[in-house]
Amino acid sequence: MTARRPDTRPTLEAVAAVAGVSRATVSRVINGVQTVDPAIVAMVEKAIDETGYVPNLAARTLVTRRTGSVALVVSEPTERPHASPFLERLFTDPYVGRVTAGAQQVLRPRDIHLAILPADPPAHDQVVRYVRQGHVDGVLLVTSSTGDPLPARFAALAVPVVLSTHLAGADESAGVSWVDLDQAAGGRLAAEHLVARGRTRLATVAGPTDVPFARARLDGFLDAVRAAGLPEPLVVEGDFTRAGGEAAARELLAARPDVDGVFGASDLMADGASTVLQESGRRVPEDVAVVGFDDSTVAHQAHPPLTTVRQPVEEMAAEMARLLLAAIDTPETEPRSVLFDPTLVVRDSA
Amino acid sequence: MTARRPDTRPTLEAVAAVAGVSRATVSRVINGVQTVDPAIVAMVEKAIDETGYVPNLAARTLVTRRTGSVALVVSEPTERPHASPFLERLFTDPYVGRVTAGAQQVLRPRDIHLAILPADPPAHDQVVRYVRQGHVDGVLLVTSSTGDPLPARFAALAVPVVLSTHLAGADESAGVSWVDLDQAAGGRLAAEHLVARGRTRLATVAGPTDVPFARARLDGFLDAVRAAGLPEPLVVEGDFTRAGGEAAARELLAARPDVDGVFGASDLMADGASTVLQESGRRVPEDVAVVGFDDSTVAHQAHPPLTTVRQPVEEMAAEMARLLLAAIDTPETEPRSVLFDPTLVVRDSA
Repeated sequence: MTARRPDTRPTLEAVAAVAGVSRATVSRVINGVQTVDPAIVAMVEKAIDETGYVPNLAARTLVTRRTGSVALVVSEPTERPHASPFLERLFTDPYVGRVTAGAQQVLRPRDIHLAILPADPPAHDQVVRYVRQGHVDGVLLVTSSTGDPLPARFAALAVPVVLSTHLAGADESAGVSWVDLDQAAGGRLAAEHLVARGRTRLATVAGPTDVPFARARLDGFLDAVRAAGLPEPLVVEGDFTRAGGEAAARELLAARPDVDGVFGASDLMADGASTVLQESGRRVPEDVAVVGFDDSTVAHQAHPPLTTVRQPVEEMAAEMARLLLAAIDTPETEPRSVLFDPTLVVRDSA
Repeated sequence: MTARRPDTRPTLEAVAAVAGVSRATVSRVINGVQTVDPAIVAMVEKAIDETGYVPNLAARTLVTRRTGSVALVVSEPTERPHASPFLERLFTDPYVGRVTAGAQQVLRPRDIHLAILPADPPAHDQVVRYVRQGHVDGVLLVTSSTGDPLPARFAALAVPVVLSTHLAGADESAGVSWVDLDQAAGGRLAAEHLVARGRTRLATVAGPTDVPFARARLDGFLDAVRAAGLPEPLVVEGDFTRAGGEAAARELLAARPDVDGVFGASDLMADGASTVLQESGRRVPEDVAVVGFDDSTVAHQAHPPLTTVRQPVEEMAAEMARLLLAAIDTPETEPRSVLFDPTLVVRDSA
């Protein structure tokens, strides 16, 4: 990586000549100075494109101390040899798309660009280096595990960071902001709905119990079932994929064939479970009621459409972006945390 | 965006003091000079983390002319008001995950970092600006439409670019490299398999016909059906999503209830069509044989698992990354193109 490119790149002067403006004007446009006439900005941008000029990043960064970009880092804290490959999960679960869409609602009006950085363990060092090198002004960190080393590593870089979840310990010690859902309340909503529908032989396809938000959903669900005086539900773990939900449902049916209510801790797992239940000859919801979690597109595309606990992911991501912009604009801002409430969306599956 | 941060950031000197090395050594580590002892690199990296030092990006870029990063730009050329939202499709179709995984196989051993930049029309200017500002050394551009303005815009920036598809005109005039599949051969494979299974009343859920690769799959399919002397297949358009495949299958069943073979131009559309066919009481493959396209995880997770035309997306993306690295290493390299052959993977659906 030490080879140099031949230094034949177009210069600032060439851009100025093509645009018919002064060198200082080109520089102001590149640096995003807002007092330049929009028509002149357009001319200079066109000249930059025509000449193929690549601005000296340093000049811009030194003037504004900003790149105009923010990273969405999606962290996979540890290798999970038995789970689906990270990138496959990342790009088949609607969650990250919803986070991206929500963040962009806030970032686009500010003309701030979002770069998505998948970060499984082999990429951790690269992602930290990219942020440390100053390519972004701040980090939205999608993380789920208290064992994730990235929150502390980013906090050490003195770059503003906002986490997608509350990690007791990890975020408090690092003093970073976070946005989360009251996950336990979501689990309770699912249980209370199944109970209200008269279901008594319950089971749940839970997420990995070492993931704090999955643990909280499970705890809330179990609390509400116990509070209703029902027998202890069967708990089977899945990996938040549709295939994981299918495998868990098969295990669950073998252990408790008379089950009449299932809570899947994500829509994808609930959809997989619903498919397997129907393939086994059970009707959903008549024989087994199924409740999901997320209210992603999976929920309304399922057969039958899923009753689910809604997580307002887009609104939560927009709030993450707002907290991040506040921290970028005012570095001395104290870390803040925002907790959203889940709601139940009733469709046909329960 | 003109506000300045208070200039209280740690200096290079502070890093050198904490690491117990010279300022020049810290500089060499930051610039990725490969002759530094790995133990010293580790000490300096640790000191950088501890101090929270953010290197002057300019210094590094001026020395190496490299950022060590490459962008995967996923382009949506135009607004499609009737299709699913771009980000939802991006994150529910396994395609981009497969491209990412394939590219990383080549980039990681070179310690090059991949940033994913979704680029629907409102983000086009931001993405072009990010690349122009020098945050990446090259661009892998996932694109599909001849109307996409991004290939020409990136080519004008004099940054190496490799396209995920052959866009007659767009790539030739811009002189950029591309990697593609022989799409028409894939369509022919699907038709020939359905014909070999004795199916005679065929239909296809095609992609949008203004998308060149979708058009080529359709043309290959129709050519082979006609060559077999069968009646003209019914063609219904979908948007490459599962929901699009479901809607197309309903339309198809209404128009041709006696259909006995369906080619879905993507696994997601074939899976959606298969679901609707089965909900209508038809058995797959006994009553209607279904062939997909891609061989993504969707194909083997479908019920029944899909017979499909395999597109070696990971290998194709790895080749894109190799072409890009060659262009970064040797800027005067001539543009190259690589065409992959599809294969048929026979499972249970046809």
